[in-house]
Amino acid sequence: MSTSATFAHSFVPTSIGRARRGRIVTPHGEIETPEFMPVGTQATVKSLTPGDLRQAGAQMILGNTYHLNLRPTAERIARLGGLHRFMAWDGPILTDSGGFQVFSLADRRQVDDDGVTFVSHLDGSTHRLTPERSMEIQSLLGSDVAMAFDQLVDPALPRADVADAMRRTHRWAARSLAARGGGDQALFGIIQGGIDPTLRRESVDAVAGQAFDGIAVGGLSVGESKKEMAGTLDVVADALGDDPRPRYLMGVGSPPDFFTAVERGIDLFDCVLPTRVARTGQVWTDAGRMNLRNAAFQDDATPIDPSCACEACRNHSRAYLAHLFRASELLAYRLATIHNVTWTLGLLHRLRIGLEDGSYSQLRDQISAAFRRLRSEAV
Amino acid sequence: MSTSATFAHSFVPTSIGRARRGRIVTPHGEIETPEFMPVGTQATVKSLTPGDLRQAGAQMILGNTYHLNLRPTAERIARLGGLHRFMAWDGPILTDSGGFQVFSLADRRQVDDDGVTFVSHLDGSTHRLTPERSMEIQSLLGSDVAMAFDQLVDPALPRADVADAMRRTHRWAARSLAARGGGDQALFGIIQGGIDPTLRRESVDAVAGQAFDGIAVGGLSVGESKKEMAGTLDVVADALGDDPRPRYLMGVGSPPDFFTAVERGIDLFDCVLPTRVARTGQVWTDAGRMNLRNAAFQDDATPIDPSCACEACRNHSRAYLAHLFRASELLAYRLATIHNVTWTLGLLHRLRIGLEDGSYSQLRDQISAAFRRLRSEAV
Repeated sequence: MSTSATFAHSFVPTSIGRARRGRIVTPHGEIETPEFMPVGTQATVKSLTPGDLRQAGAQMILGNTYHLNLRPTAERIARLGGLHRFMAWDGPILTDSGGFQVFSLADRRQVDDDGVTFVSHLDGSTHRLTPERSMEIQSLLGSDVAMAFDQLVDPALPRADVADAMRRTHRWAARSLAARGGGDQALFGIIQGGIDPTLRRESVDAVAGQAFDGIAVGGLSVGESKKEMAGTLDVVADALGDDPRPRYLMGVGSPPDFFTAVERGIDLFDCVLPTRVARTGQVWTDAGRMNLRNAAFQDDATPIDPSCACEACRNHSRAYLAHLFRASELLAYRLATIHNVTWTLGLLHRLRIGLEDGSYSQLRDQISAAFRRLRSEAV
Repeated sequence: MSTSATFAHSFVPTSIGRARRGRIVTPHGEIETPEFMPVGTQATVKSLTPGDLRQAGAQMILGNTYHLNLRPTAERIARLGGLHRFMAWDGPILTDSGGFQVFSLADRRQVDDDGVTFVSHLDGSTHRLTPERSMEIQSLLGSDVAMAFDQLVDPALPRADVADAMRRTHRWAARSLAARGGGDQALFGIIQGGIDPTLRRESVDAVAGQAFDGIAVGGLSVGESKKEMAGTLDVVADALGDDPRPRYLMGVGSPPDFFTAVERGIDLFDCVLPTRVARTGQVWTDAGRMNLRNAAFQDDATPIDPSCACEACRNHSRAYLAHLFRASELLAYRLATIHNVTWTLGLLHRLRIGLEDGSYSQLRDQISAAFRRLRSEAV
């Protein structure tokens, strides 16, 4: 069903629910799945170099069509040799379609059946995104995986509004496929439909019925409960059945959610959570989360996580990091980000091992208990 | 004359004016001189890890008594094993005495013959620094080289005020020596006296006559002209004669100034300039300075300096850095800082080579011409 020359996906089922242990092949390398993609919104995972990302174990990262097209612009990146060369990351890159960011603009955008007109958050200038323009931008960026242009809505809106947006997303999916550049770039379609099982099933049929290289689940982690998220993933998994394409849960990245989703067949994740909370001083370990701004850490000579091999834990104490955060030193943001990205990618690595050697359930129970507090909060 | 058990200094004269090519030995390693010390105000050279500093070629760095004593406090750093361990830098460290920062507080400090009472810039709390407390703090920090507590004044003040502050500095120098902790920590005295030759000569006699391990020149680069700075360094060099101790010019770090001072016998420098301007987008090369925020660089696919081996130049284009600065991305500050520290330390390395192989004058002429614009500005 793939229309990309290079893109490929293989996996084996596991004994853990619908969890799959797989591998994705792209023009810039392979990705062992399930895997998490750090988010490089503006052509950088905030505070990190490509070398930092490699050292943290990153296989694939995400770039943002909305942000990159406003600045430095997709045309400029194309003139400079594409996004890989521009940001000096030679591994696989997935670009989103701009849909999520545009719909986050709330009262600064106007949707019609053809596309969306919106006002730039940078300078107030007016821009337009359509499925065709989103495909053009992503082709200029040269990502390994592009995403279809979709319309995200608040799942708490009236059912008719959720259904309208979903059906527009289906029409835009077909236009995205028709407008794709060809060549080596893969294209994933996006399932919408909020938390309504009937709408989700309709969306799976509409999207999976098209010649996409992968299937994404959009519209989750936007305010619904954890139970609603899991239930929706069950509906999607049932409807997808044995569809062999990679499945990508967009915008989800809290540690317990990885397990919830992997058991429901998800192969890929992205989220700004690990990097965003790091910059506030919140770091993640197997014991849960820890806020380095807490007064107690000012005299704590131990590293964030003695078992962690990241640069922050190898060289620095909690006391030093607590000082850097209190002093608003730039190094604080980098070291905490290095730790959270390293730990999160390490968690996915252990999750993959767990699917192979049977230790998965123990890991899930340990992490879920440690992060229980996090689950009950809006993050 | 040295009173430190480990500290040592050796040098050979050169054919370039009074320039010396030397080596300083400290408990944490040796420093080839002349050398520049990057400034780690709050126990970090802003945005850099110790590994970044090593890779940039740093031999010795500076820490700030004023800042570190307010936060996280000298007592806390001592409990955590000292400044080297706290910031994970195992090379030599020089700490200033707090004098410069306290006198920068202007109307928030009150000087008497015993010391200075001042109001913290962090929380408005009242603190006191005396020669004895400055020595205690620096002993708690455990730096390799401590500085005597001095009173800096604006050289444009009436001569009597400059003389009063200078003579107080001499009395405080004797108290600093008497209060020093002993052990391996070396102690440098500081020459003051503004730009008045008679006062400077008096200050050299008063400071060099005491049992310091090194001699610093304070009170320059605070508003005087480049000609006044050079003239004052001539007066100091004449008065010091063949004094064998290392000579440290405090707070000076613009590329042409290195040559002006080295030819007048200076061995050590520190300055926030290379790191501070980097965070505004100004980077230094053999061709002079370059502001990465300039529109022209947005489409420039070449690195800052094709001949530079730093991480920024090895991996990234001016266009990418121009984008990061426009997007206020944290990575911009780090990459520009890595470049400026690498280039500045590389310049001192080439200056040392030049003193040995006769290429010094060519290097000086090239750099002075390239940075001529910088010389005429307040930096």
